[in-house]
Amino acid sequence: MDFKFSSRVPNVDNDVVGEILKVAGDPEIISFAGGLPAPELFPVKEMHEAADKVFEKHGAEALQYTAAIGNPHLRELIVERMQTNKEVTTTVDNVCITTGSEQSIDLVAKMMVDKGDVILVEKPTYLCALDVFRSYGAKVVGVDMDEEGMKMDALDEKLSEYPDTKFIYTIPNFQNPTGRTMTAERRAKMVELAEAHGVTILEDDPYGEIRYSGVAVPPVKHFDKNGTVVYMNTFSKILAPGMRLGWIVADKKFIDMFVVMKQSADLHSDNLSQFIVAQYMEDNDLDKHIKAISDVYYERASLMLKEIDEQFPAGVKHSNPEGGMFIWVEVPGNVNTMDLFNNCVKHNVAFVPGEPFYPDEVIPGTFRMNFSNMKADQIHEGVRRMAVAIDEMMK
Amino acid sequence: MDFKFSSRVPNVDNDVVGEILKVAGDPEIISFAGGLPAPELFPVKEMHEAADKVFEKHGAEALQYTAAIGNPHLRELIVERMQTNKEVTTTVDNVCITTGSEQSIDLVAKMMVDKGDVILVEKPTYLCALDVFRSYGAKVVGVDMDEEGMKMDALDEKLSEYPDTKFIYTIPNFQNPTGRTMTAERRAKMVELAEAHGVTILEDDPYGEIRYSGVAVPPVKHFDKNGTVVYMNTFSKILAPGMRLGWIVADKKFIDMFVVMKQSADLHSDNLSQFIVAQYMEDNDLDKHIKAISDVYYERASLMLKEIDEQFPAGVKHSNPEGGMFIWVEVPGNVNTMDLFNNCVKHNVAFVPGEPFYPDEVIPGTFRMNFSNMKADQIHEGVRRMAVAIDEMMK
Repeated sequence: MDFKFSSRVPNVDNDVVGEILKVAGDPEIISFAGGLPAPELFPVKEMHEAADKVFEKHGAEALQYTAAIGNPHLRELIVERMQTNKEVTTTVDNVCITTGSEQSIDLVAKMMVDKGDVILVEKPTYLCALDVFRSYGAKVVGVDMDEEGMKMDALDEKLSEYPDTKFIYTIPNFQNPTGRTMTAERRAKMVELAEAHGVTILEDDPYGEIRYSGVAVPPVKHFDKNGTVVYMNTFSKILAPGMRLGWIVADKKFIDMFVVMKQSADLHSDNLSQFIVAQYMEDNDLDKHIKAISDVYYERASLMLKEIDEQFPAGVKHSNPEGGMFIWVEVPGNVNTMDLFNNCVKHNVAFVPGEPFYPDEVIPGTFRMNFSNMKADQIHEGVRRMAVAIDEMMK
Repeated sequence: MDFKFSSRVPNVDNDVVGEILKVAGDPEIISFAGGLPAPELFPVKEMHEAADKVFEKHGAEALQYTAAIGNPHLRELIVERMQTNKEVTTTVDNVCITTGSEQSIDLVAKMMVDKGDVILVEKPTYLCALDVFRSYGAKVVGVDMDEEGMKMDALDEKLSEYPDTKFIYTIPNFQNPTGRTMTAERRAKMVELAEAHGVTILEDDPYGEIRYSGVAVPPVKHFDKNGTVVYMNTFSKILAPGMRLGWIVADKKFIDMFVVMKQSADLHSDNLSQFIVAQYMEDNDLDKHIKAISDVYYERASLMLKEIDEQFPAGVKHSNPEGGMFIWVEVPGNVNTMDLFNNCVKHNVAFVPGEPFYPDEVIPGTFRMNFSNMKADQIHEGVRRMAVAIDEMMK
């Protein structure tokens, strides 16, 4: 039959990202397009031990319904980590467990955005967030950034231009897609500007703990004394994405409404997985595990950057991330990176073109490369293939 | 700070259900208000064994991201069960795993409903579905029902009155809240009417397999030859709700768009739990387990009905469910069941008043009682307390 879909459904005839990921899934192709953590680093044995304990101690409880806000013990452990690892002081009443970051973004958008409302974002930013914001009818406006993150003079201008802005969406650490990190000064300034304009900040911090060089910067939430910042994080990059668990930290008034929206979306997140992750954190040194991930990603990022420097044509620029999973590349001379993508596929290598990451105006010649799930030989060979394809396009 | 919420957020100052469940959570109170499966029946040992196998055989894979449509093996097992237990012939491409029924309802509403669109529902119906539909701006219109489910002449009238109806939402088996089951004749007729009007049917079937008397009726989907019916079900009542896993079966065109919406909501449902449930189904006789649940619920329902007949005042009517988890009660004489609820709480017993289940016009004197999670002594004593409270109100 012909279905009468709502105006919220996206135009799937134009699903660039879907097409890219489909092509990139070809086993012949070395794909730098994804954003998957390295599965060989998952703590399978420790997670299995944690699961055993949960079934023995809390079996029926873990299989039953639970409260939408999430497992109390897991929320306590998160409160502790927010203090020790993030310099954010909070309470269990300010923490809600979510079914991963995607859900956090979706629910915040649903509870904040009416058709035509403005959301300010870094230019470029996480493409799936753009899709979600647009699904609620948001007008997404890009704010310029440089190597030090979103530019505060540009933000100030946009906040004045759009006085009814609903929120600012930012990924301050090892940003997706650029790998850039916002300075502490700008974070403090962002809170100041947001408060002056009465605008909420949605801080998305999935990569913050995967830092392998430089000095950690406290989250934007650290500089927030008045509940302006809604902070979100996930276990996807530091533990395992398959379990779909994330969390938000926010003002009690925000959390209370968020829990209502959460309940209406899926009642609560997987209770068994919440128990298992809490047990894992109880029995293991999560920081040590994250250090092991960061060490491997450091090797892979360093190798990819070295190969890019050696093999890509002169004039190609790239970001120098101190953590996370992505490198952002800029090719000179107005190269259309969708065409470049198609040429790379002929050479059996893939990446994500810059275009879908831009909220409005697209800067040509930009694209994202992922290194977290790539072994050394794949990085070496993949960059070599890309270099040949870029060379052909720049001629 | 003051948050600028969207028009989608509900009025939480008027959260009747939240208040009811809060009161009902008091350990002094015998609560027939909830809708929890009996945790003592969860197959904890078998699920533990399944988890062990998953960690041993598929550890890293189960902890990694997966496709939004869900685990292929679990979808195959669902296709088999749809054939053997539901007389519905389908394929894995027509099945999408969801994070429970609540998410299925939410996503279908999001992808179908624009502000002001009409959804037709049984009067009364599942209150959380009403909340979700309203959160997308739907106008929800009730269709009369009797002991044999939604009335088809009433449906035909409403379809003519609201030609732009987006979909019909129905719970044909042991309906929530009434416990009533729609006849096969009406199911076939519903498909015929929906097709004549070009309207989709959303069939919600969480309780269908918990049948302890009478003869099974095939789902509405069984009568659908043209993709008119979107069928949804869940593992919450037949296995364990904590794992938050449900599924939909629909036309390929519908599934393709649903998967896009699903990806945007939480990327995919918990992958570890999908692996564990598939392994459980592979190694165990799920039908035998469901029979064990049904036997216990039969005892509890029979006892509750007997106690109601013996202890409630004359003139009180109730449904006679052949399965599921709920009994629907009607008290004569325009009793306000919110007042009755408050009086019952004084007697340390709770239920859910009928009002929030009604999409529009409220029929006074109705309420829902749950028996699935109540032991015999609680049923006996709780009904006794309610009888006293009702007596006081009817004087």
